[in-house]
Amino acid sequence: MSQSVIEHVLSRLRETGINCVFGVAGDFAFPIDDAVTANRQMRWIGSCNELNAAYAADGYARIHGVAALCTTYGVGELSAINGIAGAYAENVPIFHLVGMPASGVQAAHRLVHHTLGSGEFDLFHKMAEPVVCARAIMTPENCAAETERLIAAALYHRRPVYAGFPTDYATSPIVGTAQPLPEPVSDPNALEAAVNAVVARIDGARTACIVPGNLLSRLGLNAQATNLVKASNLPFATMFMDKSVLEESLPNYIGMYDGKLMNEEVRAFVEGSDLVLGIGAQLTDFNAGGFTARIDRSKSVNILHHSVRVGQAVYDKIEMKDILIALADKVTRRDLKVTKAPGLGKPVGSRNEKITVEYLYPRWEAMLREGDTLITDTGTSSMGMAFANMPKGSTFHNQTLWGSIGWATPAAFGAALAAPDRRTVLITGEGSHQLTAQEISQFPRFGLKPLIFVLNNDGYLIERLLAKNGDSYYNDLAQWNYHKLPDALGCEGWLTARVTTCGELDDIIRKAESSPTGAYIEVVTDRYAASRLAEKLHESIGSLYA
Amino acid sequence: MSQSVIEHVLSRLRETGINCVFGVAGDFAFPIDDAVTANRQMRWIGSCNELNAAYAADGYARIHGVAALCTTYGVGELSAINGIAGAYAENVPIFHLVGMPASGVQAAHRLVHHTLGSGEFDLFHKMAEPVVCARAIMTPENCAAETERLIAAALYHRRPVYAGFPTDYATSPIVGTAQPLPEPVSDPNALEAAVNAVVARIDGARTACIVPGNLLSRLGLNAQATNLVKASNLPFATMFMDKSVLEESLPNYIGMYDGKLMNEEVRAFVEGSDLVLGIGAQLTDFNAGGFTARIDRSKSVNILHHSVRVGQAVYDKIEMKDILIALADKVTRRDLKVTKAPGLGKPVGSRNEKITVEYLYPRWEAMLREGDTLITDTGTSSMGMAFANMPKGSTFHNQTLWGSIGWATPAAFGAALAAPDRRTVLITGEGSHQLTAQEISQFPRFGLKPLIFVLNNDGYLIERLLAKNGDSYYNDLAQWNYHKLPDALGCEGWLTARVTTCGELDDIIRKAESSPTGAYIEVVTDRYAASRLAEKLHESIGSLYA
Repeated sequence: MSQSVIEHVLSRLRETGINCVFGVAGDFAFPIDDAVTANRQMRWIGSCNELNAAYAADGYARIHGVAALCTTYGVGELSAINGIAGAYAENVPIFHLVGMPASGVQAAHRLVHHTLGSGEFDLFHKMAEPVVCARAIMTPENCAAETERLIAAALYHRRPVYAGFPTDYATSPIVGTAQPLPEPVSDPNALEAAVNAVVARIDGARTACIVPGNLLSRLGLNAQATNLVKASNLPFATMFMDKSVLEESLPNYIGMYDGKLMNEEVRAFVEGSDLVLGIGAQLTDFNAGGFTARIDRSKSVNILHHSVRVGQAVYDKIEMKDILIALADKVTRRDLKVTKAPGLGKPVGSRNEKITVEYLYPRWEAMLREGDTLITDTGTSSMGMAFANMPKGSTFHNQTLWGSIGWATPAAFGAALAAPDRRTVLITGEGSHQLTAQEISQFPRFGLKPLIFVLNNDGYLIERLLAKNGDSYYNDLAQWNYHKLPDALGCEGWLTARVTTCGELDDIIRKAESSPTGAYIEVVTDRYAASRLAEKLHESIGSLYA
Repeated sequence: MSQSVIEHVLSRLRETGINCVFGVAGDFAFPIDDAVTANRQMRWIGSCNELNAAYAADGYARIHGVAALCTTYGVGELSAINGIAGAYAENVPIFHLVGMPASGVQAAHRLVHHTLGSGEFDLFHKMAEPVVCARAIMTPENCAAETERLIAAALYHRRPVYAGFPTDYATSPIVGTAQPLPEPVSDPNALEAAVNAVVARIDGARTACIVPGNLLSRLGLNAQATNLVKASNLPFATMFMDKSVLEESLPNYIGMYDGKLMNEEVRAFVEGSDLVLGIGAQLTDFNAGGFTARIDRSKSVNILHHSVRVGQAVYDKIEMKDILIALADKVTRRDLKVTKAPGLGKPVGSRNEKITVEYLYPRWEAMLREGDTLITDTGTSSMGMAFANMPKGSTFHNQTLWGSIGWATPAAFGAALAAPDRRTVLITGEGSHQLTAQEISQFPRFGLKPLIFVLNNDGYLIERLLAKNGDSYYNDLAQWNYHKLPDALGCEGWLTARVTTCGELDDIIRKAESSPTGAYIEVVTDRYAASRLAEKLHESIGSLYA
């Protein structure tokens, strides 16, 4: 007997690297849920709610490359849509499988639950249109071809796609077959021209540097880009959303570039270079130091996913992978003297003092180990950790462009699941944590032992710094006993603590480092204890919002 | 000096009955947040996340009539959109105020946070289009007129509206003025014709009954409909989503009508009547006993919001309020003998036995007091409580059509805030609770003391009953220690307990009844201990999904 529609889709997703599906079960999605649990090469990963599931899928895909999410009609898909939008903004490919009422129910315009009561069934997948790169309602007849189109689109754009499954169609036998669509290939002439142009630019530049973007991670091209760095021996700097996309332990790493706000030496070097070779990096507000970065377009090259810009000229039909390999082969090795960014330095503060910024961030930096996965939420804590030097093999993750607070807690779960052998460290402000805190209950279900820090500074600190009046009560929060959450949420035996002094923080970090369990540490600081970048943004509101 | 755009909108909302704004603060929404906190007749109600804020606004509006919600651009509004869709489906008017990047930032297509990085700023309010009845991007020039249009639309349709505020426009002085749009009025000729037709139908019917819908609550017409019931002395039955829209303590109340699934006597009476007089009631799947209800269109009248259907004929341009008043005045008083539905009876079970369905639901019914606000989440527990008889002045609330699990916990907070002098009782399954549980931390911030029951039956029970294989692990949940949540979430001093026997449940309810604090009770039952309606749905899957 031939495969059903959903069986076929799952088996093709499996071949694309998907081995689990995040989501929340629901009646219109039962055929999908049943097929996932029946597939021995797939796991169902239930989340507390759909937005958390989308964030978890996003975190998973940032490590694993791709992810799948399943939600039910209307209520489920719309709850997840902000997570899908974030994945779209940040080039994270998620296959969003949505269970729909049966085709006959739709055709008869029946007044069923999870609808607006209007008899219309075409509304919600249309709402998803701006935040997915392709979408389809699957039928037995279109399934073979549409599956290939969706997979190709998700991989071509590294963005989410949407597949709706009416319950009856999901379990119907698939009709016909389709071949996988070919991967995009570079035009050899365009590639040669672009390579020559870029090499000429590099050779002609007295000083040059590379600014790699996080698309390298999304495409799994970190090694190819590293080869280019090594072959050229050019220095590289990274921006916020691209942090750690190339190993910060490489000698070529000169530090974080954040316009005029931070690291003046890095800014001077990058902006003073005759050539800045971007690899998919984007000058967004929080990447570009609140728009204080100034990179002259005519003095820069940007290698994009499917094209290359050299000064004002754009070369189309070039795949990032191909030009990275070609450049590494052809580039002249340079010998530029550069200074590596110093990181955050030594923690400053004595044991009995309350925890200050001068102690906290350096202490966190010192705690990082080789191979760590560090997930940070939008806010002052990520802005502090962005300037920590990351040890070999460790990666830093943040949702910098979309910036949806609450992302990090479920994303840390997804990331931990994708790399269970690596230590997952979550650093989040308490304001961000409140949005999605229940998701820590997922870690113990899968035997995962994260190290979680919740920075409690009595409110949304980054908002206090950006608002007209920081003390406005809309920046206040319900007062939680954060360190009691793991016990309430079933994280049995976890190491938990609430620390207020430098000594307590130091002790609990040491204890956590040798703990065989998950750890959850509430770190209490003063209300306005802000990382340096956060302070700088506060001083630079004019340029940030201009 | 003239008012700013946002000041003007808030002052008009104040005149429309809005006295607080739910939401989560965010930088693009600061001008709105600032204006709310600066307005002495408004309160800012911060929620843990935007979906919870939307649900809280929804719960508030179900009691108060209208509500306002404020979220920031992209991330905030999309997180809330499922809550807005639910309000649309269930006729709850919510004014959704969305902070947007400044007009110049939009015009320059800048790459700012909370965008997709495409320079497009028109995407998200368009995504909201299917789930709001009107929307506008506010400018100084259009503000006066658009504010009136949005208010009129929200009240005319009793549905959410969307207003986007670019940061610079929000604080600019408003240009020009506009008068409130006139309320819709009935066409006197149409009204007279409809009244005569309905009265003739009633007079010509040997047996007749009324089926009131929850639109009555949304429109604040409960008193007018009650007058019609009293004047006609007709019996009335209610369906699930309309439960308690008219006082169940009235002698005319014959019970819940749920097609063939429950209350056979009620079904026989309603379906056997020569005339069924609906007042906005809808035959949706969960209202109509999984589509087992059979009301002959030719033998029924339905009074809708702006029209009246009499058999096959529709009379337009008639306001529900006007025809209710006219009918009460003109209808002949009947004297039909009917039997009132018995409710759930006496709790059955001895003190040391584990908690069964036969004990639980009757015990919960017995606990209800006059004036209670009972909020139930979608699932087996709401299906049980739907057949409890509600004491005088008490109301039952459930999101029956949209059915987004997780709604009830934040909605209970909003409802409690709207009626702080009434006791708020929340009954939720633990699966539903997990989606939005953090919102219980809001109650103590406002001195609210709810009585919360979390039914822990080890998974999504309604899904176990509707799925092909109930024990599929996608219906399992992370194991929480629910009764420890209030302490972790800052609900200081609350009465908390985990009960497993009938005696423990009885004791803790008694204790809660005299407790001066909030109470949070985890009620543990067997995995398949389902309310009767839930069992019936399990047996009737065929008709439910046909």
